[in-house]
Amino acid sequence: MALIVQKFGGSSVGTLDRIHHVASRIIETKQSGHHVVVVVSAMQGETDRLIRLAQTLTNEPHPREYDVLVSTGEQVSMALLAMALQAKSIPARSFTGHQIGIMTDETHTKARILNVKTETIQKTLNDGFVVIVAGFQGINKHGDITTLGRGGSDTTAVALAAALKADECQIYTDVEGVYTTDPHLLPEASLLPQISFEEMLEMSSLGAKVLQMRSVELASKHNLPIRVLSTFSKHPGTLVTFEDKIMQKRLVSGIAFSREESLIALSAVPNRAGIEGQILGKISDAQIEIDMIAQNASDQDKTDFTFTVQRKDFPKALKIVETLAAELGALSPKTNPKVAKLSLVGIGMRSHAGVASNMFRALGNANINIQMITTSEIKISVVIDEDSLERGVRAVHEAFGLDKLSVETHQDFMET
Amino acid sequence: MALIVQKFGGSSVGTLDRIHHVASRIIETKQSGHHVVVVVSAMQGETDRLIRLAQTLTNEPHPREYDVLVSTGEQVSMALLAMALQAKSIPARSFTGHQIGIMTDETHTKARILNVKTETIQKTLNDGFVVIVAGFQGINKHGDITTLGRGGSDTTAVALAAALKADECQIYTDVEGVYTTDPHLLPEASLLPQISFEEMLEMSSLGAKVLQMRSVELASKHNLPIRVLSTFSKHPGTLVTFEDKIMQKRLVSGIAFSREESLIALSAVPNRAGIEGQILGKISDAQIEIDMIAQNASDQDKTDFTFTVQRKDFPKALKIVETLAAELGALSPKTNPKVAKLSLVGIGMRSHAGVASNMFRALGNANINIQMITTSEIKISVVIDEDSLERGVRAVHEAFGLDKLSVETHQDFMET
Repeated sequence: MALIVQKFGGSSVGTLDRIHHVASRIIETKQSGHHVVVVVSAMQGETDRLIRLAQTLTNEPHPREYDVLVSTGEQVSMALLAMALQAKSIPARSFTGHQIGIMTDETHTKARILNVKTETIQKTLNDGFVVIVAGFQGINKHGDITTLGRGGSDTTAVALAAALKADECQIYTDVEGVYTTDPHLLPEASLLPQISFEEMLEMSSLGAKVLQMRSVELASKHNLPIRVLSTFSKHPGTLVTFEDKIMQKRLVSGIAFSREESLIALSAVPNRAGIEGQILGKISDAQIEIDMIAQNASDQDKTDFTFTVQRKDFPKALKIVETLAAELGALSPKTNPKVAKLSLVGIGMRSHAGVASNMFRALGNANINIQMITTSEIKISVVIDEDSLERGVRAVHEAFGLDKLSVETHQDFMET
Repeated sequence: MALIVQKFGGSSVGTLDRIHHVASRIIETKQSGHHVVVVVSAMQGETDRLIRLAQTLTNEPHPREYDVLVSTGEQVSMALLAMALQAKSIPARSFTGHQIGIMTDETHTKARILNVKTETIQKTLNDGFVVIVAGFQGINKHGDITTLGRGGSDTTAVALAAALKADECQIYTDVEGVYTTDPHLLPEASLLPQISFEEMLEMSSLGAKVLQMRSVELASKHNLPIRVLSTFSKHPGTLVTFEDKIMQKRLVSGIAFSREESLIALSAVPNRAGIEGQILGKISDAQIEIDMIAQNASDQDKTDFTFTVQRKDFPKALKIVETLAAELGALSPKTNPKVAKLSLVGIGMRSHAGVASNMFRALGNANINIQMITTSEIKISVVIDEDSLERGVRAVHEAFGLDKLSVETHQDFMET
C-alpha cells in the first residue's frame, strides 16, 4: 500500500461530468489498495469570476478579503468532488486549508507554505476515507485565510506529499505530460517520460506552463517525485525526479521559448566598474523587468551591453537607454523590437561540449541569425527574430533527435 | 456607545451596487459612535445556484459536503462587503463561522447553535474594526462545517447579539418591517412599530416570512430586542420586543393566513380514549403533516373530529381517513379541499373577552362561513373557503382598526 497525492486542476474539475470522471480515476487508485489524498483547484473560470466580482466592486480589493473571497472556489470543488465519491459509495471527506492546518506566512494573495499539519489527514486516511484538500489556500498565524497565488494548488499538493512522506505526487492536468517543446508550435514534439527537477525548473521559467515553479523547487528540496499526467487519458505522463533516477540519459531534454521580447544593445559603453548596475538600475527603477543580459568587452576601454525586455516595456526602456547613452558618451543604442528567445535545456550538456556548437550550426543551416547568446549550466538561450522562431525550434529539435524519443516503460508508475 | 448587530439578507447584498449601499448604512451606524457587528447572507440566488450544482451532480448530496459547499455563499458576500467598507476607508474584517467559533450540534444542513465564542469579535471591535460574520454557518465539535438551514442568518445574528450582550439586533431585509397583514393581499395593511415576541412567533409560524422562527425564540429567551427594517429606506421598521416594553397597548396586532390547505371532518367517531391518537397516528405515519385539529364531543358516545392538511397531501390523507372511518364505523368523512386559514394574533386578547365574537361577527357580516375554529392564548384561527380569504382578512382587519394604526415614535431606535 502506497500513499499517493493526486492534484486535479481547474480544467479537470471544470464541469460536473468531469468531476464524476475525476472521481472514477481516484477510485481506481483507491481500489488498487492505496491511500489517496486529493488536492483540487477551483472549477475552471470560477477564480476569474470571483476576481471580477472583487475588481468590479473596488479598484483595490483589500488583500485579506481578496483571499477570503477567492478561497471559496476550491471549497466548492472539494465539496462537489467529495459528494461525487460518496455517491459512488467511496467514503470521502473534504477539508479547507484551515481545517487541515496548512500554515503560511502573512503575505496575502501570494503566501508561502511554512508548515503542514498531518494529524487530521492521517486519522481520516486510517479511518478509510479519501481525503480531499482545497488547493491554493492556507491560514496564517492569526487564523486569517491566505492564498498562494496562481497555480498554488500544485504547491499545496507537493507540500502535502512532502509532509505526509507520500510515495508519489501526481499532478493531473489537461496535457499528457511534459513535452520536448510546445506541441502547439511543433506537432512532432515528443512526450518526455522523465525529466530532472533542474531541467523542469528551466522549462517552467521559460514558459512551459505545466507546473508551478515553486512546487518544483519544493519537490526537489524534499526529494519527492512528481508525475505530470492527463486526467483524460491513461498515459503514464512525465515523471519529474532526480537526475540519478533517470535511467536513459539524454544530452538535452527540451526546447523552451518565449515570444514578445525586445532587444536593446548598447555599444561602446565606457568599461568601468559599476557601469552595468548604473544602466540596469535606471531600467528597474522604472518597474521594467529585464530578462536576458549579455556583455562583451570589445576592447579595454569600451564594452558592448545587450539585454531584452518584454515587448510592452520596450518604448519606455528605449527612452531611458537613449538618455543614458548620451550621458555616457556611448553610441546610440541598436534595437530589435520583435525578437524571441529560444532555449535548449538539458542536464546532459553539463558534461558534453559540442552541444552549443551543434545548436548554433543547426540555426545557421536554417539561415537564422543569432542576435544574442546567454548560457547557464544546463541551458543555452539565443535571441532570434520572432518570425524565425518556429523554424528555429524545428531545426534545433531535429538536430538533437528530440522528435524521435521513444516512450520508455514506466516501471514505477503507481496510479493503478 | 452601543453595540449593534446588523444582519443583511440575500436581497440586501444581491448585487455589487447593493453591497456598496449596505456598506454606507453600516458606516452611518459606525460613525454615530457605535460598535458594529454585521452578519451577512449569501448574495441572492447564490445558495440556490450551489444547491443546484450539488443536486445535478448527485441525487443525494452527502450532508457534510453539502454544508461545505453551500457555506461558501456567505463567505463570498462577507469578503465583498469587507472590501466595500475598506474601499470607503472604514477598517473591516470578515470571519467565517469557523474563525469566530460558532459552535453547533452535529446535525448537518439544519444545525443548532450551541455556543458562540466572543474573543475574536471583541478584540477586533476594540481594535476599531467593523466585524463581518458569515451567517448561516458554524462548526461542530469535530471542526466540520455545519449550516443552520434556510433563514439561518437571522439566528446567527441573534445568537451573536445575545453572546455579545448587544444593545440591539437589527435585521435588514427588503420589507419595511412587520405589517398587520400581508400588504400584497391587503394594501391598507399597517406597519407595526412594535410587536411582542409571542405575537411574532404566531405571525412567523403562520407565514409572515420576515424572521426565521428560531431566531425569534432565541431573542425572546435572551430578552434581546430585534428590529426588523428595510435596507432600502430610512424607516425605523418594527421592534420585536417584550410585552412590557410595548407602550401603546393594542388588543390585536395582526392577521396571518395560509392558503393551500384542505379540511377533512370525521363525524360520529366512537368517543373512546386514544381514538385521536389512532387516527392522527395513521396520518403522520404516512409522512403527512397535520396543521389544525379541532374536536367536538357531539354526544357522550360519539365525537366529531376535524383537521387540516396541506393541499398536496389531501388525496393521500383522505384515502387513509376513509379506510379508518369504515373500520371505526364512523360516517363517511366530509371534506373541503380548498380552504384557507385566517388567524387573528394579539397579546391583548388574553385579557379581553369579546375579541373572538367581534372577529366572528365581522366574518358573518361579510357573509363568510366559518368551517372550523381553533384558539390559543393569543391567537384565534378560523378555516374558511379559500375564495373568501381576501374578503375575510379585510373584514377582520377593519373590524379591529388595523388599517388605522398610527406610526409611533421610536425613541430607542439606535441606527443613527
